[in-house]
Amino acid sequence: MACAILFPKMEGSTSPKALRVAAISGSLRRGSANTGLIRAAKEICEESIPGMVIDHVDISDLPLLNTDMEVDGGFPPAVEAFRASVRAADCFLFASPEYNYSISGPLKNALDWGSRPPNCWADRAAAIVSASGGSGGSRSMYHIRQVGVFLDIHFINKPEVFIKAHQPPKKFDSDGNLIDPEIKEELKEMLLSLQAFALRLQGKPANSKHAA
Amino acid sequence: MACAILFPKMEGSTSPKALRVAAISGSLRRGSANTGLIRAAKEICEESIPGMVIDHVDISDLPLLNTDMEVDGGFPPAVEAFRASVRAADCFLFASPEYNYSISGPLKNALDWGSRPPNCWADRAAAIVSASGGSGGSRSMYHIRQVGVFLDIHFINKPEVFIKAHQPPKKFDSDGNLIDPEIKEELKEMLLSLQAFALRLQGKPANSKHAA
Amino acid sequence: MACAILFPKMEGSTSPKALRVAAISGSLRRGSANTGLIRAAKEICEESIPGMVIDHVDISDLPLLNTDMEVDGGFPPAVEAFRASVRAADCFLFASPEYNYSISGPLKNALDWGSRPPNCWADRAAAIVSASGGSGGSRSMYHIRQVGVFLDIHFINKPEVFIKAHQPPKKFDSDGNLIDPEIKEELKEMLLSLQAFALRLQGKPANSKHAA
Amino acid sequence: MACAILFPKMEGSTSPKALRVAAISGSLRRGSANTGLIRAAKEICEESIPGMVIDHVDISDLPLLNTDMEVDGGFPPAVEAFRASVRAADCFLFASPEYNYSISGPLKNALDWGSRPPNCWADRAAAIVSASGGSGGSRSMYHIRQVGVFLDIHFINKPEVFIKAHQPPKKFDSDGNLIDPEIKEELKEMLLSLQAFALRLQGKPANSKHAA
Repeated sequence: MACAILFPKMEGSTSPKALRVAAISGSLRRGSANTGLIRAAKEICEESIPGMVIDHVDISDLPLLNTDMEVDGGFPPAVEAFRASVRAADCFLFASPEYNYSISGPLKNALDWGSRPPNCWADRAAAIVSASGGSGGSRSMYHIRQVGVFLDIHFINKPEVFIKAHQPPKKFDSDGNLIDPEIKEELKEMLLSLQAFALRLQGKPANSKHAA
Repeated sequence: MACAILFPKMEGSTSPKALRVAAISGSLRRGSANTGLIRAAKEICEESIPGMVIDHVDISDLPLLNTDMEVDGGFPPAVEAFRASVRAADCFLFASPEYNYSISGPLKNALDWGSRPPNCWADRAAAIVSASGGSGGSRSMYHIRQVGVFLDIHFINKPEVFIKAHQPPKKFDSDGNLIDPEIKEELKEMLLSLQAFALRLQGKPANSKHAA
Repeated sequence: MACAILFPKMEGSTSPKALRVAAISGSLRRGSANTGLIRAAKEICEESIPGMVIDHVDISDLPLLNTDMEVDGGFPPAVEAFRASVRAADCFLFASPEYNYSISGPLKNALDWGSRPPNCWADRAAAIVSASGGSGGSRSMYHIRQVGVFLDIHFINKPEVFIKAHQPPKKFDSDGNLIDPEIKEELKEMLLSLQAFALRLQGKPANSKHAA
Repeated sequence: MACAILFPKMEGSTSPKALRVAAISGSLRRGSANTGLIRAAKEICEESIPGMVIDHVDISDLPLLNTDMEVDGGFPPAVEAFRASVRAADCFLFASPEYNYSISGPLKNALDWGSRPPNCWADRAAAIVSASGGSGGSRSMYHIRQVGVFLDIHFINKPEVFIKAHQPPKKFDSDGNLIDPEIKEELKEMLLSLQAFALRLQGKPANSKHAA
């Protein structure tokens, strides 16, 4: 089922105390570059960021938000599964296209379901990356950040990664896989910044997880 | 089917050249105060604003945006019906709750479907009203306006109507019907401003429709 | 004195009913590219847009806003002169750098002085152009537009002109003069759009001024 | 001189390692409620928040930003003094009115001067309070937060304190002094949240300063 976490939560190669990152793509299409960025982030963590694991949380099965669907404090199954994934995470990675200068409808819908009381997002670090036409997502990110004030999410400030998906050279293949090494490096810098900020907020030394 | 226009487009009591307002509620629940505002706006126009007709456009049947659903330039039936309603309108009324300091997910999803090329929203006047907790929607309206820049919507500046739905005295009954005469008056002022601005953009004298 | 209009209001070559555009640069430095854009806009209007005249309104002499300076409904002389220039205009052109993802301090200060009751900006069309580093000003423009809701300014939606001032090829000489013919063409398109929208809001046919 | 810190940096009653809060009012008028909030915050810290000291940083002497004033990497004296105060702070408190739905011109000007390389604001915690008409400042705060992304400021998410300055009961006396005990309590909660977040970012236990 799509709203479950798509990758197993505990992998043999990581410490049981690894930071778990719930990663959400705001685009639902198969060949999405933003979903490709999540796959790339997962690989980067596996290859070169000890102590951090990306869990892709699919949002395509969520119904449009309608609080009439909440019965006796319970949510529809797809929503319950999504909310459990959000609650279980240590921090968040949003990879989202900019639709009409703002958050994509599917991502906003997911943010809203996760916010229904009790709010599942609170007091965790987050980062945003966007592959988009035009400005690369520079307008929508600040809308996500404004939402985050109410949800009590702490976003890293830097680096901000805006990817102009349609500008040459080609950055993604036709399946949405990231093929640009420079952007891969930018993404890695962002993930390291997210890791450092998440650990700082948890009161842990930034590199404790990296120790041999 | 929900995405069709819920009210007949031509009513005997109005001129065939009446301004048609596509009115969209950002809340899908049955007892929504925002949907109640659209019913109230419809009544106000019927009772006291000649030349202006509210058509409620339901968005609850729209799928989450996924451009894989577009085949040979065609859209799923619910989307086609919605887009036809948007295209047919002379102007727009958005009645939307504020969800997490921004646009509701369902409304953003509808705005996005309507924007798929060719953009259905362009060059029309619009107004926003919000019934919401907290600030009454004062944060989300500017996100809708930013979206409107790309969609090429011309919003009226004044009056802005923010309704603190949960503050006493009681403003809506349990079905979401507006029962507060002061807000009804504010809503009427907003509709008159929308009418005047829409006519001005169309190059027509503001009160030509009111002449006996 | 700097806050007076820097160019004579009536020039022999234009009709007495030309649209007067109060043009304000958000940057105060001598070699500002944004001030250069205003000079370029002035030339474009003189050369090829009949019926539209740019008046550069300098804001460098305005004091920081402090309402204690208002005495018996009067303002300091530099503020009075600025407000008179705003009131006299038919529409506005803002050329402003993006400072820290928002409006420049000097421009915000000028917008605020002009808003003191009675508001001098109301019900006029406007356009924004920005020469800036980074995103070319795409973040700050929406802040100016939000301010414009309260000031009752009607912004054109398109085209938006964002100039990445520091990207090659060289777009401005060391005095801030625009030397890029493509940007000059974009600026002309924006001015034509502003003219058309201003005339539309005034209830005049878009090309009446161009008639022989 | 106004841009110096108005209160002595080291007071006998506080630990030499107290958190120093640079507090900036966005309003320059004598009887400003926002400046009154800074005085109130100072008193609250002195009376009941050990380990936290408010330093009021006046911005009224700053010139309008013009980078031509920067000579050989140096700034005008008032700017140098302001920047030194910002650099010396552990965290920030902004008390600012909402002017035309955005940041006040004087506050934006100060933020901009402090951002000139090398950026003086980076990597510190901050909180915003606003006494304002209308919505109490709910629109402008998100503009300050957007600016903070570039400046690398980490804002607390909660509580947000919006004070509707002109609504009864009377909240400030004619000199701008806070006289409302409920708002004083809200302000204290915000200061405690700022203290906790600043210490968390510094990697210190939240209550270490409170130990006997």
